[in-house]
Amino acid sequence: MFCKDNVVSLVLDMKWRKVMSSMFGKNIKISIFGQSHSKAIGISIDGLPAGIKIDMDKLNRFMSRRAPGGKFYSTPRKEADSVEFISGLVDDTTCGAPICGIIKNTNTKSSDYSELRDIPRPGHADYTANVKYKGYQDVAGGGHFSGRLTAPLCIAGGICMQILEQKGITIAAHISNLGGLSDDKFDMAHINAENLVKLQEREFPIINDDVFEAMKKRVEEVKSEKDSLGGIIECAVVGLKPGIGDPMFDGVENKIASIVFGIPAVKGIEFGAGFAVADMWGSENNDEFYYDEEDDTVKTKTNNHGGILGGITSGMPIVYRVAIKPTPSIAREQDSVSLEKSENVKLKIKGRHDPCIVPRAVPVVEAATAVALVDLIMDSESLN
Amino acid sequence: MFCKDNVVSLVLDMKWRKVMSSMFGKNIKISIFGQSHSKAIGISIDGLPAGIKIDMDKLNRFMSRRAPGGKFYSTPRKEADSVEFISGLVDDTTCGAPICGIIKNTNTKSSDYSELRDIPRPGHADYTANVKYKGYQDVAGGGHFSGRLTAPLCIAGGICMQILEQKGITIAAHISNLGGLSDDKFDMAHINAENLVKLQEREFPIINDDVFEAMKKRVEEVKSEKDSLGGIIECAVVGLKPGIGDPMFDGVENKIASIVFGIPAVKGIEFGAGFAVADMWGSENNDEFYYDEEDDTVKTKTNNHGGILGGITSGMPIVYRVAIKPTPSIAREQDSVSLEKSENVKLKIKGRHDPCIVPRAVPVVEAATAVALVDLIMDSESLN
Amino acid sequence: MFCKDNVVSLVLDMKWRKVMSSMFGKNIKISIFGQSHSKAIGISIDGLPAGIKIDMDKLNRFMSRRAPGGKFYSTPRKEADSVEFISGLVDDTTCGAPICGIIKNTNTKSSDYSELRDIPRPGHADYTANVKYKGYQDVAGGGHFSGRLTAPLCIAGGICMQILEQKGITIAAHISNLGGLSDDKFDMAHINAENLVKLQEREFPIINDDVFEAMKKRVEEVKSEKDSLGGIIECAVVGLKPGIGDPMFDGVENKIASIVFGIPAVKGIEFGAGFAVADMWGSENNDEFYYDEEDDTVKTKTNNHGGILGGITSGMPIVYRVAIKPTPSIAREQDSVSLEKSENVKLKIKGRHDPCIVPRAVPVVEAATAVALVDLIMDSESLN
Amino acid sequence: MFCKDNVVSLVLDMKWRKVMSSMFGKNIKISIFGQSHSKAIGISIDGLPAGIKIDMDKLNRFMSRRAPGGKFYSTPRKEADSVEFISGLVDDTTCGAPICGIIKNTNTKSSDYSELRDIPRPGHADYTANVKYKGYQDVAGGGHFSGRLTAPLCIAGGICMQILEQKGITIAAHISNLGGLSDDKFDMAHINAENLVKLQEREFPIINDDVFEAMKKRVEEVKSEKDSLGGIIECAVVGLKPGIGDPMFDGVENKIASIVFGIPAVKGIEFGAGFAVADMWGSENNDEFYYDEEDDTVKTKTNNHGGILGGITSGMPIVYRVAIKPTPSIAREQDSVSLEKSENVKLKIKGRHDPCIVPRAVPVVEAATAVALVDLIMDSESLN
Repeated sequence: MFCKDNVVSLVLDMKWRKVMSSMFGKNIKISIFGQSHSKAIGISIDGLPAGIKIDMDKLNRFMSRRAPGGKFYSTPRKEADSVEFISGLVDDTTCGAPICGIIKNTNTKSSDYSELRDIPRPGHADYTANVKYKGYQDVAGGGHFSGRLTAPLCIAGGICMQILEQKGITIAAHISNLGGLSDDKFDMAHINAENLVKLQEREFPIINDDVFEAMKKRVEEVKSEKDSLGGIIECAVVGLKPGIGDPMFDGVENKIASIVFGIPAVKGIEFGAGFAVADMWGSENNDEFYYDEEDDTVKTKTNNHGGILGGITSGMPIVYRVAIKPTPSIAREQDSVSLEKSENVKLKIKGRHDPCIVPRAVPVVEAATAVALVDLIMDSESLN
Repeated sequence: MFCKDNVVSLVLDMKWRKVMSSMFGKNIKISIFGQSHSKAIGISIDGLPAGIKIDMDKLNRFMSRRAPGGKFYSTPRKEADSVEFISGLVDDTTCGAPICGIIKNTNTKSSDYSELRDIPRPGHADYTANVKYKGYQDVAGGGHFSGRLTAPLCIAGGICMQILEQKGITIAAHISNLGGLSDDKFDMAHINAENLVKLQEREFPIINDDVFEAMKKRVEEVKSEKDSLGGIIECAVVGLKPGIGDPMFDGVENKIASIVFGIPAVKGIEFGAGFAVADMWGSENNDEFYYDEEDDTVKTKTNNHGGILGGITSGMPIVYRVAIKPTPSIAREQDSVSLEKSENVKLKIKGRHDPCIVPRAVPVVEAATAVALVDLIMDSESLN
Repeated sequence: MFCKDNVVSLVLDMKWRKVMSSMFGKNIKISIFGQSHSKAIGISIDGLPAGIKIDMDKLNRFMSRRAPGGKFYSTPRKEADSVEFISGLVDDTTCGAPICGIIKNTNTKSSDYSELRDIPRPGHADYTANVKYKGYQDVAGGGHFSGRLTAPLCIAGGICMQILEQKGITIAAHISNLGGLSDDKFDMAHINAENLVKLQEREFPIINDDVFEAMKKRVEEVKSEKDSLGGIIECAVVGLKPGIGDPMFDGVENKIASIVFGIPAVKGIEFGAGFAVADMWGSENNDEFYYDEEDDTVKTKTNNHGGILGGITSGMPIVYRVAIKPTPSIAREQDSVSLEKSENVKLKIKGRHDPCIVPRAVPVVEAATAVALVDLIMDSESLN
Repeated sequence: MFCKDNVVSLVLDMKWRKVMSSMFGKNIKISIFGQSHSKAIGISIDGLPAGIKIDMDKLNRFMSRRAPGGKFYSTPRKEADSVEFISGLVDDTTCGAPICGIIKNTNTKSSDYSELRDIPRPGHADYTANVKYKGYQDVAGGGHFSGRLTAPLCIAGGICMQILEQKGITIAAHISNLGGLSDDKFDMAHINAENLVKLQEREFPIINDDVFEAMKKRVEEVKSEKDSLGGIIECAVVGLKPGIGDPMFDGVENKIASIVFGIPAVKGIEFGAGFAVADMWGSENNDEFYYDEEDDTVKTKTNNHGGILGGITSGMPIVYRVAIKPTPSIAREQDSVSLEKSENVKLKIKGRHDPCIVPRAVPVVEAATAVALVDLIMDSESLN
């Protein structure tokens, strides 16, 4: 019914003009392209100043945090995710021209995905893509909707993190919750760069080591049940000056939210005290100011505002949390429909998938944050 | 230290280019202007097609839902909020030219706010604005950061809601939580237009009448304590076709989030199951598809995805929740700093303020949603 | 046939999403609203930094250069064009919030224009507006297409010119050609600020006084013939640093062209040698570099490039020319059609109109240039 | 003085945020990347609907019109310019995901260009790029400023021309003037698709064959003099419905101008009668309307408005002309400066260059027009 040929009549009055927007940014503009099984995936980054040296080893280490392979929480499938820069760099240094980095897709088996055009997988974008693209979407491996497309975002994010570090700004995230099991939370008013750097270096980024075994066990449990887990990622940024961001629609919260919801599986975002504000009185939630003589700055005693007031940075750490839904690809049989036959059918997804993408999403959240912040900072500061 | 004259040296390398962005949209573009105590506040709306008749009575009724005055949860201060359209309409009908609507500011007492430039109020944008605008910000009544600036958003939103209604799309929100007291939640897979219209018509929009007295009592309690309350607003949209929105950065979630964080006091947003996904397994969170013979469409049995998959509408109701922090203006004494003297001081805010802005924020959330959806829909459908 | 009711069937597959874009800019964003006979016309300017003091007398003098009344080349109709700022300024100083300035429309006689919906005037946008807005356009006085809408652009331009002057940048234009009569051209490689300031102060801005009488005589001649004249405006900018603007689509030429074509009646634009390059050999057109020891800068001996190479300023004066078509409103009888009756008719335009708008367009061209340059400069420099 | 290390001090207060913008568009968004000697050049095209079949042979034929090699007016250097699509297409059909097409750079000899960082070539962007990018620009072959970067624009343009043809819209341009020698002009009110298709098929696109020999002779003459020629390209579009485009800043003229000035060497653009309007009276320039019974439409007898009134298409052919400056690379000795030594020097450019790029720029102008029009049309029509 929704398949290639006759969907047209059904959505007769819906004639798409623009059908996809994988671009982000105002000062730097990123354009992400590629599908799970296209020749390559990649990104163009337009707007970075000339003269920025990129540490390629560091970038590759960052990329490998997202890459799958050999970890207890990920698919055994190996993807090297090595970036080839085809423009914009001379001797690993930005030359002012747009940077284009690509990652070749190798070892793709498109045959596994032939059924997806007819029978949409629950929790995936198969059905909505089928309506929007009238059956012409690239179904192989999830096409442009694949989590694999977070790799190009990590190219831009990895570069932006290096730029921010030069300016004394550090970003790191941890697995705040995995399948219902909680890590310690950030002490929002007292996060420092050292702690964040340590988090970046951990293969499994948690604050409290004691929860590791329980989390690992839960992942293995859900794997054996052919099921999957969701979680919460908490991200912090320190080193930002006060005064970055704008009120209303170009605030720091708007900007971060608008890029973070571009990460597949994100279903919520909260800053500072977040949803807990519903239970707080004003006198408790308000962060009182004090004057810190030591470094001659104004600070707040608590940080329920998560570093942002009126859309603008206060100089306190930015803290926010992101809800990640369980991987929708599960091996259990599920109910679905045949779009072609307009009837209910059973679906069993083949292939091997991550029982939990939360750990691999941690660097992606950091990357998205870095891109958003560089774009915001360029309104008031130069990058080099 | 951060006051007008010498802040410049402190933030020497922060030279703002763009300092404020109160614009939103791609197909329709809104530009909000005004400060709490300027001659007027208002909005220009660029991009609506010609020939759309606006029901002015309906628009005024919508505006009055946000306006303060005489309600148990709001300041006794009266603001008429009557809109004067100075361009874009001929006989209450759009003529294709940008619509400009203004609301005059009358009865403003700027004398109350003289201290704000020196002593920032906790939880407000006084401090961050002072840094960003180097002491030149309009402090009277909170300037451009005042909650009063949500009125122009309601002009655009009220018009957009009328446009959406013509297309069979209904938006309504309710007070899901007030100061820790919960209303019933939406039954996400089974919301219908009738229920939503009823909510729109309620002065105090809740689903379960039984919680009203408790909520009212808590507001009065907090008022007598010179304190304030936060809450959660839950918003739903029915009648949207599948296929609206884009993957990645122009998805429905990104778009709604980027406008909703423009409402002062919003600290979080979650779609569908939201943060609860952390506790759910994939088999529970995945919304299985079924074929509904009655209206020949594909639906999902549950609606944990909140009507959006891969950034694109599925045809199921959109459901999302927004966290609203407690009004930061409280009459209790609070700690703050004198920016001029660089020392700690005590602050007592004068004037009368809403003990809880959540009820008045309900139509603002609906308005923001309507603007975002009209902008998204224009990518695939005509409005008239 | 193209009138309100049945045009819909004719353009059945053209369903406008966005119908008007009277917005411009990236760092500062202007939104122009109003129709010739709406309550007011105006502009919102979003993005100027706080702390910029505006000289209101100077702004009013600039506005009066565009205003009609009492000049030999303009309609005797008087329009005060006095600007009322309703937001964004405190004590005539920017406060960081969007500036909204309006000009009230008084003394409008809409009765004169009733026929325009049926019989389009040659050279005007009556016909194209009728198709686009399906007969719902505001026809009174030309609606949003009226030359009167250049007044709000002059508000933004007048402010931007003051900002640029603070930075040592001067813009001025002159009547290079009026009805075939030529003024002297700028000596492109040797323009200086003094000469430009003198031009700004002239009521009838020409370089060579000797052509004045001939131009005046030609205007009177064409007036007595119930006809109108076109011309060419040449604009120059001095004081710009090298390095402003971007290659490809955000170059200085692209930016200026994209705003200048927003001025009604502009039909062409050329930079530096312009169309004359067709007759030049490379060795003649290439501007050779030399090192100027006096001020330690690199300059070019000639300035055929008009101050822009690869989209980027070279530090040499920017020079460009704009073609202005003759006022389309002429008192002579003309051929047109009745859209309602689908038949040929004769049309005689009533009312009194400028026989030549070129002199009044001079400050508008300067204004447009100033807005474009401020927007470009904000990519690399702070404004205050 | 302007070389890599110490330019920083000179432009101390110019700290670029955004340094390059090679993106264009609102509904479709193109992002061009690459330098003359980078691994590859290419483009990402975001926003085309799914289901558009691309005729690859036709696209390659279009690309070859721009490619150099073996023509009397071009360098003997061979560039295949064969496009490799790495994303966005399945079986040569758009799948809704962004299209990325790249052209590999082979056979590049970077050694020829080492001097360019110190001694800027007159008429090129070497100097302005050096200031803007502080010496970090990629100088090899002109870097991102190379005319070679028009090849990716032709990828997008070639695709857009195919889309427009499906909708009955035809674009073609001809060499209106070459080194002072004029071709016939378009008969603006009577251009038809057939004539335009014939022009597209000509290797040397002129209307009047009789001027060919004189043009060829002049090219050979200038070549032997080690010099170069400029010219004028005239472009026409037929088949556009009335009502496309917006008033003010999003008009058809603004849009076309803003992309056309992205083509290196363009110094002017004029629509319809263009600069000739300066010599015309209103009664001559105004295009009178008449009702054409044959095809039941409103037309104009003449077409001095070039198919655009008030920024909006009238249904008459769009006609515009573009001035192309002589190739700045000439073999003659020229005066320049050593940026490093701050002294005047003589420069002799090595290598072989096109004596005249006008013929190769013809398809580029068509491509730019096609991209602009598809972007504009998407505001009112669906593409498939």
